[in-house]
Amino acid sequence: MKRLEKVKGTRDLLPEEMAKRRWIFERIRNVFERYNFHEVLTPTFEYTELFKLRSGEEVVEQLYAFDDKGGRNLSLRPDMTSSVARLYVNSFQNAPKPVKWYYMANMFRYEEPQSGRYREFWQAGVELLGSDKVEADAEVIALFVESYLATSLKEFTVNIGDRVLLDEFAKMISVKDDIGLMRLIDKKDKMSREDFIGALKEFGLNDDGVKKVLALVDIKGLPDEVLPKAEELFTSEEAKAEIKRLYELVDLLDAYGISRWIRIDLGIARGFDYYTSVVFEAIAPNDLGIGSVGGGGRYDNLIEVFGGKPTPATGFAIGIERLIPILEWKDLIPEPKLRPDVYVVPIGKDAEVKRAATEVVSTLRRAGIKADVELTGRKVRKALDYADRLGVPYVVLIGKRDLEEGKVTIRDMESGEQRILEKENAIKEIVKLLGL
Amino acid sequence: MKRLEKVKGTRDLLPEEMAKRRWIFERIRNVFERYNFHEVLTPTFEYTELFKLRSGEEVVEQLYAFDDKGGRNLSLRPDMTSSVARLYVNSFQNAPKPVKWYYMANMFRYEEPQSGRYREFWQAGVELLGSDKVEADAEVIALFVESYLATSLKEFTVNIGDRVLLDEFAKMISVKDDIGLMRLIDKKDKMSREDFIGALKEFGLNDDGVKKVLALVDIKGLPDEVLPKAEELFTSEEAKAEIKRLYELVDLLDAYGISRWIRIDLGIARGFDYYTSVVFEAIAPNDLGIGSVGGGGRYDNLIEVFGGKPTPATGFAIGIERLIPILEWKDLIPEPKLRPDVYVVPIGKDAEVKRAATEVVSTLRRAGIKADVELTGRKVRKALDYADRLGVPYVVLIGKRDLEEGKVTIRDMESGEQRILEKENAIKEIVKLLGL
Repeated sequence: MKRLEKVKGTRDLLPEEMAKRRWIFERIRNVFERYNFHEVLTPTFEYTELFKLRSGEEVVEQLYAFDDKGGRNLSLRPDMTSSVARLYVNSFQNAPKPVKWYYMANMFRYEEPQSGRYREFWQAGVELLGSDKVEADAEVIALFVESYLATSLKEFTVNIGDRVLLDEFAKMISVKDDIGLMRLIDKKDKMSREDFIGALKEFGLNDDGVKKVLALVDIKGLPDEVLPKAEELFTSEEAKAEIKRLYELVDLLDAYGISRWIRIDLGIARGFDYYTSVVFEAIAPNDLGIGSVGGGGRYDNLIEVFGGKPTPATGFAIGIERLIPILEWKDLIPEPKLRPDVYVVPIGKDAEVKRAATEVVSTLRRAGIKADVELTGRKVRKALDYADRLGVPYVVLIGKRDLEEGKVTIRDMESGEQRILEKENAIKEIVKLLGL
Repeated sequence: MKRLEKVKGTRDLLPEEMAKRRWIFERIRNVFERYNFHEVLTPTFEYTELFKLRSGEEVVEQLYAFDDKGGRNLSLRPDMTSSVARLYVNSFQNAPKPVKWYYMANMFRYEEPQSGRYREFWQAGVELLGSDKVEADAEVIALFVESYLATSLKEFTVNIGDRVLLDEFAKMISVKDDIGLMRLIDKKDKMSREDFIGALKEFGLNDDGVKKVLALVDIKGLPDEVLPKAEELFTSEEAKAEIKRLYELVDLLDAYGISRWIRIDLGIARGFDYYTSVVFEAIAPNDLGIGSVGGGGRYDNLIEVFGGKPTPATGFAIGIERLIPILEWKDLIPEPKLRPDVYVVPIGKDAEVKRAATEVVSTLRRAGIKADVELTGRKVRKALDYADRLGVPYVVLIGKRDLEEGKVTIRDMESGEQRILEKENAIKEIVKLLGL
């Protein structure tokens, strides 16, 4: 029965997974907020045209597009940047700058499911609109690093590339199809050096061109070590100015205290064609076949493409489905507590006993305790088995005879010890036992 | 340009609205968790067939349905219960009972936008699967009430109806089209008494039938006052047993301490046809044209319809887009803070000054302070105007000459008072000023 399955490439998120996600989102949110970014959320679907304006061909092919009952051609969002750009152009062009927004939302792409890749996936990201300054890039990259650190990840690097330099490079070696060259360079880590050289020749480069590309992708490592190599390779004024900007960026990132995680990698292009200067991505080594766990960059032309006044912008997105498996593999996410601290069990079917059980569980919950009450009518023995299986630390047993004397029983599930207490004292005792 | 608009019936949620939503969701989540419900999330789209299995005709007509690139006929979820039922049947039939799940998610229905109604909307809801006991209904209804209370709403009632009694009633007055009758009764509050009587006659009822329907919908008010009327109206054994169950329910709700908000209203049917016993909805009086702000009930047949073993279930959903306008109208949501507590401004373009500004803002953020730094290159005067406009309480000014002596300036934006302090002391001073 097809109707009883979930759709290929989608997942059900069960309580344990959801609790872990909440933990991650809350920690990232906390950093976003401290950096004075504010949350926005746009609709799940937009006019398909909107996404075509910005996205590369690949993304357009992967759109979940459909006609609604009013004949509008709509698509589920494949990313958030297009919607955020629309929102900015619609209503925020005259707002004080910079506009600092973040989002935590789901995206949709029809692509082959694989490790860390689903057809519905979540991203936590930011966009900073209205500053062309290198300080804005530094702010966003620092926040990017701090976001991963907030999830307890320590072993990762943020690799910084630059689209101006890639453009200048294409000019330098007289390549007309600069986008084609970038695509090729972007894929370099997915092939052997030999295959890469073969692909470059096939692309039409002569030996000198190939040599220069290899010199370019070799500019990879600690900024202090590799930026001087870039100064040697590039000769144009534009390139020199951009390299100077990279030095300033690296210096500011040092002031943010995050140099440890920063690498330069001039071989990074980042798929989308709309980046205009700095681009970056985070790599956390893993055995799971997961590449980048997030990325971003500066996109100074996009707002204009969307019909707005020219507005410089920079931002990033963290791929939650990429990040979580790595955090789990490293055992960095605390085990969520999916059971109550107290379980209240009425003994028998007497209405007064049930009332008392309800009152006790209700009082415990009002005291802020995660408490549950037996709801299925099962016998005491089975109720205790259930509590045991769930790892509930304390059970309150309420029997008719005890209750007539105003008493209830607290059972410590670990020791098996039972104590009979006045109903009111029992609640105080539990609050004490739980250390609340 | 159509592509630059959002789609009809959808909305952009801006920072203020998002902060208010977070406040509401967190408060509701807190109660859900204390009641030991656990969060799940299913995919945004499922096979269209899945939603047809459960939903009334109206909902099927409102589906956002489309074919994906693999030829699957999919729909955006119009509610969560179908997906939760699928998830339960897929993987939780053998889990310990009851299963207690909650969700906070967006739904999609193609219907005419109106006050509190959008084509994409959010619900916070719970499902309790695996208990047919009245205790389970009481637990869910108590949680329903406590959820609204958690959002500071006080003036509302939860009106309880009963589908067994409606079925018995249809038999009693010999109506074959019981669903048609329920639909009619469901709409009674949207028309005058005269129109309602006219509609009943048109439906085919004779004078005695109309009289009985009017007696039925008159069973509305405090349980103690109106349940005896129900005992008079109904004669069958089934009805008597169900009324007894309602008495037990009301007694348990009293033990939960929430009687104040409970009313009986036997004229409630709740659109969907899958309810099997108790149904309920929350009404918060308002001038905004918003009716019910949430509802639920028992649905003991649904899991079987989805191909599972017969499993009793009960649950509810709270309509966030209905609730928020009422909370705002009553001024119950605290104004969110959308500005930093400190704004750090480097004076001039000196690299050392920028570095120092970055270090200061970074240190403040690490201390847990919401802090920002000037990123647009604007002059001090404009930066202060900006801070003033946003209502930032403290600005740290960093100038080259002061910095050479290791000093920075703190400006209290309200008083205009400025103090020059050692850099390190300035940070301590701000932490103290903010009372952190």
